[in-house]
Amino acid sequence: MSEKKSILNVTVWNEYRHERNEQACHDVYPDGIHGCIKSFLDPDPTLNVRLAALDDPEQGLPDEVLNSTDVLLWWGHMAHHEVSDALVEKIRDRVYRGKMGLIVLHSGHHSKVFKAVVGTNGNLSWGRDQNEIVWNLLPGHPITAGIPDHFELFEELYCEPFYVPQPDELVFGSWFEDGFIFRSGLCYYRGAGKVFYFQPGHEYDRSFYNPYVRRIIQNAVKWAAPNEIVYPIENGCPCIQYKLNDKFGQ
Amino acid sequence: MSEKKSILNVTVWNEYRHERNEQACHDVYPDGIHGCIKSFLDPDPTLNVRLAALDDPEQGLPDEVLNSTDVLLWWGHMAHHEVSDALVEKIRDRVYRGKMGLIVLHSGHHSKVFKAVVGTNGNLSWGRDQNEIVWNLLPGHPITAGIPDHFELFEELYCEPFYVPQPDELVFGSWFEDGFIFRSGLCYYRGAGKVFYFQPGHEYDRSFYNPYVRRIIQNAVKWAAPNEIVYPIENGCPCIQYKLNDKFGQ
Amino acid sequence: MSEKKSILNVTVWNEYRHERNEQACHDVYPDGIHGCIKSFLDPDPTLNVRLAALDDPEQGLPDEVLNSTDVLLWWGHMAHHEVSDALVEKIRDRVYRGKMGLIVLHSGHHSKVFKAVVGTNGNLSWGRDQNEIVWNLLPGHPITAGIPDHFELFEELYCEPFYVPQPDELVFGSWFEDGFIFRSGLCYYRGAGKVFYFQPGHEYDRSFYNPYVRRIIQNAVKWAAPNEIVYPIENGCPCIQYKLNDKFGQ
Amino acid sequence: MSEKKSILNVTVWNEYRHERNEQACHDVYPDGIHGCIKSFLDPDPTLNVRLAALDDPEQGLPDEVLNSTDVLLWWGHMAHHEVSDALVEKIRDRVYRGKMGLIVLHSGHHSKVFKAVVGTNGNLSWGRDQNEIVWNLLPGHPITAGIPDHFELFEELYCEPFYVPQPDELVFGSWFEDGFIFRSGLCYYRGAGKVFYFQPGHEYDRSFYNPYVRRIIQNAVKWAAPNEIVYPIENGCPCIQYKLNDKFGQ
Repeated sequence: MSEKKSILNVTVWNEYRHERNEQACHDVYPDGIHGCIKSFLDPDPTLNVRLAALDDPEQGLPDEVLNSTDVLLWWGHMAHHEVSDALVEKIRDRVYRGKMGLIVLHSGHHSKVFKAVVGTNGNLSWGRDQNEIVWNLLPGHPITAGIPDHFELFEELYCEPFYVPQPDELVFGSWFEDGFIFRSGLCYYRGAGKVFYFQPGHEYDRSFYNPYVRRIIQNAVKWAAPNEIVYPIENGCPCIQYKLNDKFGQ
Repeated sequence: MSEKKSILNVTVWNEYRHERNEQACHDVYPDGIHGCIKSFLDPDPTLNVRLAALDDPEQGLPDEVLNSTDVLLWWGHMAHHEVSDALVEKIRDRVYRGKMGLIVLHSGHHSKVFKAVVGTNGNLSWGRDQNEIVWNLLPGHPITAGIPDHFELFEELYCEPFYVPQPDELVFGSWFEDGFIFRSGLCYYRGAGKVFYFQPGHEYDRSFYNPYVRRIIQNAVKWAAPNEIVYPIENGCPCIQYKLNDKFGQ
Repeated sequence: MSEKKSILNVTVWNEYRHERNEQACHDVYPDGIHGCIKSFLDPDPTLNVRLAALDDPEQGLPDEVLNSTDVLLWWGHMAHHEVSDALVEKIRDRVYRGKMGLIVLHSGHHSKVFKAVVGTNGNLSWGRDQNEIVWNLLPGHPITAGIPDHFELFEELYCEPFYVPQPDELVFGSWFEDGFIFRSGLCYYRGAGKVFYFQPGHEYDRSFYNPYVRRIIQNAVKWAAPNEIVYPIENGCPCIQYKLNDKFGQ
Repeated sequence: MSEKKSILNVTVWNEYRHERNEQACHDVYPDGIHGCIKSFLDPDPTLNVRLAALDDPEQGLPDEVLNSTDVLLWWGHMAHHEVSDALVEKIRDRVYRGKMGLIVLHSGHHSKVFKAVVGTNGNLSWGRDQNEIVWNLLPGHPITAGIPDHFELFEELYCEPFYVPQPDELVFGSWFEDGFIFRSGLCYYRGAGKVFYFQPGHEYDRSFYNPYVRRIIQNAVKWAAPNEIVYPIENGCPCIQYKLNDKFGQ
């Protein structure tokens, strides 16, 4: 059982291969994509931000880290298949039991984690980098707080068909100059937890420096944080041994 | 109480002012937009299609017509305010009680009927005619049967923000060449009835001649048809005078 | 345009007839249902709570009150028809433009306000007061923060079929001892605003003294509060006079 | 690419252990639960119904069967863990690519198939057999065609919290005499396919003889059938090599 927390433990997980192996990518994100994300989350005194990477021990998420994480951000691309199934199952379980929110960024759409947690093959179409306009489709939603009706990015093309479940809330949709659209911001309730998928974040583009992308991720961390759940949620199907209505004296 | 019907009574309601008063519009739709729609629904022997127009007696929908209509299609634009509130209330009631499906086309987004039935102000932004690409977002849905992953139209710009409720099913989304997107095909359950909104259909453009637009409207008529409801649905709040569980002999 | 507010102006609107005219009801809520609700919202220093009643001048919501209200709570029953259509339209507009959240309680399901804002006839079935068990269906949702998996009330029977739109989030469902169920906590995004419907609150029962009901309403006030919207939302359909993609230098 | 089919190939998969090993269960379903289901689907001349069981070769679903199945029904309970992960992956892929609909019955909530396809741990609470009242929550939905507003069963208790994603359509909800409720009929769009979960069907109870349960399953088979999809859907992320808007001659 959890009390509402004054400090959120945020873990930014990054595959962290592109930035180390490709100069063009390193030039954009010298501290890694995760390092860049940490830099704009850190100023918030209510967040305690840690970094994790695929090539760290235990793929960056040993139990003591995972089990103290309130919100997990996930960026992966070329090495999805290397992530251990056991780790995916632990993440999935933690989200479903409401212990942790999950934010999946860009090419994470094809990660084992996203596919397993949300229930999708994660398939989409993609293409050359180009101009994108992100549209705010749900101005009442906490993730759109402070975001204008639209803003522009230069991004890798991600486009429909995107074979995801209809989201509980479709927050952003995007226009791409070559004639394509994409549902680019998606909220899912899963089990007792929450998941946000957000499309921007190609490793050669500068979206994580965009102030609106930053604000959206900041908002999403707060939105995805675990709720104050005051009863135990285990992974199992408890057997009810009593009549709940006995107390009514029928 | 209704049995599943072998013949659907379809009424195509059209404001029918533009086509009579503007040559350019008359040239595109010489029999009116409603006449054009009837022409591609008529070949289906399971449909009995009637026409109705604002300037007909009782605004085209006297009780004997309305009360025998299974699916109502609605196109209006310049004269939304002329439609009688009493008629709107009758339509709303018939949809909510599951007697009739409703398909709202193009500028009908701002009709009293759409706003009252769905719960919206119907507001959107709009602009010059331009190239549109309609994307199929839900290939498993009956309204997308036979529709490719995308198709092209030349249409009036309709764009986000579109202040509609999140639909039960978001079926189509559209790209517009000037940098805009629009949720262009929306399914709503309302009461015991169903509503489909579809964006194409500007009075000067030829969308109602497009084979995919035609197929979508044909599909939507079948989707929106009243369900086989085997219990009475009145407009009111019945008082329950018994314990349903008495029969269990507690 | 609005900044995120540190203080929320909450107006609790009550029909306030039962409590003045019926002794049994007065005995339960001597200060009115609205007074009782105010009493458990007032301790929160971030809320500025005002009372409004049908028989107050301008039905309790003159423009200066309505236009400074961030969250409106609504309880009505016997006098729904007396509420002015013009006032309903003002409330609907304010919610749709994201200026105000709306919380509708108990018999407010049949109010003009609920029906117009959400898009429903508000119909349900009802019956004798009895034992109710409220089930928490979405433990990750902010409105269920601090609420157990279930809790008990003694309430007027409200039961399915409830002819409301499928909610964006179904938060609570209720069991009633006579054999009935009810979707008892419903979240709706409408326009740029948010609406919560909550079933408990019969004028002769003591639900507004229940600590979980109180916590839920406290949570709902925070959830329904207007978002930080940084662009103008008027009631109308603006015409776009430019190509958004011109800046890309195509 | 598929044409709309005049005949649907339906495969009823059953774990088929209880009925062979437990007399009480054999007495209720002497031909197995799958045999009983086949018996009430067979009279429909548009359905071609086959049986499959866990202990059949290749767990009942060799490729030639699976790849010619339009709708798969799934009943499992004590041997969920025996179902091969490779088979689960094939089923999941076929549903996501819109080749096959999936109907999961009763204790199938905890099957690998349901958990993987929908994105859930499938957890619920359960208890003794008792009186259940199933309520029709969406009378406009094709799965409720011909179903009254409620009907009664005697069933194993399944109750909330049920840790499933919010469904696209919540079709049925159930009251249980001991004080519990359950979301008992759930529709999910997943990828290009459709999934229906339905709670009745305990191996010792007679729900599959109930005429409403039978009608619901008949309706669900039609609802879940693959759509007429006219473009290829492979399992992968195609790269777009062209500008779709080039044809517009910008």
